[in-house]
Amino acid sequence: MNLLPDQARERFAAARVARLATAGPDGVPHLVPIVFALDGDVLYSAVDAKPKRTTSLRRLANVAANPAVAVLADHYDEDWSALWWARADGAGTVLDRDDPDVAAEVGRALGLLAGRYPQYLQAPPPGPVLRVAVTRWSGWSG
Amino acid sequence: MNLLPDQARERFAAARVARLATAGPDGVPHLVPIVFALDGDVLYSAVDAKPKRTTSLRRLANVAANPAVAVLADHYDEDWSALWWARADGAGTVLDRDDPDVAAEVGRALGLLAGRYPQYLQAPPPGPVLRVAVTRWSGWSG
Repeated sequence: MNLLPDQARERFAAARVARLATAGPDGVPHLVPIVFALDGDVLYSAVDAKPKRTTSLRRLANVAANPAVAVLADHYDEDWSALWWARADGAGTVLDRDDPDVAAEVGRALGLLAGRYPQYLQAPPPGPVLRVAVTRWSGWSG
Repeated sequence: MNLLPDQARERFAAARVARLATAGPDGVPHLVPIVFALDGDVLYSAVDAKPKRTTSLRRLANVAANPAVAVLADHYDEDWSALWWARADGAGTVLDRDDPDVAAEVGRALGLLAGRYPQYLQAPPPGPVLRVAVTRWSGWSG
């Protein structure tokens, strides 16, 4: 059965991992797993790669050229009546931590991420932050 | 560290669930979880929806308009040194089981799927089959 938007958001928010789909100007989809934090209907994810490499990261180049993104959390179980997924569709923006206009938001995002993932306290992610303004929550449960 | 293509393929092949990213002519990515079976470098996934509904399924409409797809398997662990993901990039085709030219391939695909997922023995998927010719295997392991 389909999930209501609030139900999809709640299941998504509790997931530890999600997958980010972007598409470049050539229409080729790109897909990577991400860890994330939610702040209402805004999703944040940090880039672990070294700053010098980030300009060549496909997901960031795609978002810069085409902000449409989809992010999916799901649960697999051999009992298929226990399957579910929840999806966030929205618009992505790359936040450069060296941009003073977004420094406060980057700080807040990194705080939210470190609150969910203690791994980030020991090794803060050095790259930019991806911000997704979620415009649609959807999902399905078996 | 990056996985070699054969390593990525091997990890992918053992996964029970993956995520399929497609993109429509508008460049908007779409993302759903799938179960799948591999036959060499060809991936098959069945559509559970009733045949009458499949023409409106976004993933199939997207593939018909734009064959570029990405499929991701990943493993999450709170010990981030145990994280890994494996990705298949390729070209998708929708196989209509009523098309005599592909009936044999559809039968073989459904057999492979039922071999991996006994759930399909009890309730064979009624819709078409998605075929992905994988052109690139990639991946990463912590």
